[in-house]
Amino acid sequence: MSDRARHIPEATVARLPVYLRSLAELVDDKIATVSSERLAEMAGVNAAKVRKDLSYLGSYGTRGVGYDVEYLLFQMSRELGLTHDWPVAIVGAGNLGSALANYGGFTQRGFPVVAMFDADRAKVGRRVHGVLVHHTDDIVELAAELGIGIGVIATPASAAQDVADKLVAAGVGSVLNFAPTVITVPEGVSLRKVDLALELQILSFYQEHREPAG
Amino acid sequence: MSDRARHIPEATVARLPVYLRSLAELVDDKIATVSSERLAEMAGVNAAKVRKDLSYLGSYGTRGVGYDVEYLLFQMSRELGLTHDWPVAIVGAGNLGSALANYGGFTQRGFPVVAMFDADRAKVGRRVHGVLVHHTDDIVELAAELGIGIGVIATPASAAQDVADKLVAAGVGSVLNFAPTVITVPEGVSLRKVDLALELQILSFYQEHREPAG
Repeated sequence: MSDRARHIPEATVARLPVYLRSLAELVDDKIATVSSERLAEMAGVNAAKVRKDLSYLGSYGTRGVGYDVEYLLFQMSRELGLTHDWPVAIVGAGNLGSALANYGGFTQRGFPVVAMFDADRAKVGRRVHGVLVHHTDDIVELAAELGIGIGVIATPASAAQDVADKLVAAGVGSVLNFAPTVITVPEGVSLRKVDLALELQILSFYQEHREPAG
Repeated sequence: MSDRARHIPEATVARLPVYLRSLAELVDDKIATVSSERLAEMAGVNAAKVRKDLSYLGSYGTRGVGYDVEYLLFQMSRELGLTHDWPVAIVGAGNLGSALANYGGFTQRGFPVVAMFDADRAKVGRRVHGVLVHHTDDIVELAAELGIGIGVIATPASAAQDVADKLVAAGVGSVLNFAPTVITVPEGVSLRKVDLALELQILSFYQEHREPAG
């Protein structure tokens, strides 16, 4: 990672897509400049945090004027690597993998799903929402050949680590894990995790401990 | 919320489902006791954090023996409100909503999807993976009648706040938002957010700033 990128806190990186979305809305509304207060309100954080986060990108705005919306949007897109496409492979062609292949937001936001993989030979050769399913044995060869940047794991928990190892061996630099288990990747590979049932369990905790309606 | 629950930090609550999963694995392997070190390793955190987290539940383990696995699993399930089902409603019967209705993990982990809602009258009356689709105009009446505990928002961004307001009006205490926008709910209602494309954008940042392979 570049020195500068290395010094941007993880929590700031996680907020950049939220700012990006707010900026895109402002562009749609033909608004040319935005204050940190307005951007903070749109993103659901406080204004001091917005100024601090944007300062990591070298953006300081103009006193009394604010930030130039279009330039900030461009700068943020470039920073997030969104000025070009990142080909995505989904491993696991079950319910969740198929749902993700069908999730319009991916292609539309620069993450085209270019391949799927499954361990079940009966599924190999089929197309899921237009995307061809290959066998997981071919991950290393094909993911490298297709220039996959991001691998999405939508397999059962028991298969997830093996799939992650194969993606890493293929040179895939980023892994998004939907399997409900802890997996590890070597340093230099990025890993994010989404556990849908875990989100429900967290909500369930708060639901269980709610005050009875008064 | 009960006084005790109110004092459990959010970050601890977010780790409870992770411990729960590890404990379930230990039960499957017929292991009777577990050290904080082993549980920490399985959950991907450090042992001091495990001891601190479990102390919030009133669990301290026995020196030299560790924690009783079955008892801790029971205690954690009860704490998370997983000893009974939480009926779930999914609003938005598009690709993502249908995918979520089809996500086996929900029912299996005590979150049966009992209703779907959509603003498109052409979809009303259809079944999506067995779940009947109602009109969003009927959320307030039906969600209350069906005793919905958790509402999942899988609509376009523009509809999300209105849907959240309806769920809240129906007395739904927890909302899981998949729509790519910031929504607000009154105090006392729990809100969690999952943005799939945002996860990819975060990965894209790290991918963009990777060192070239050496």
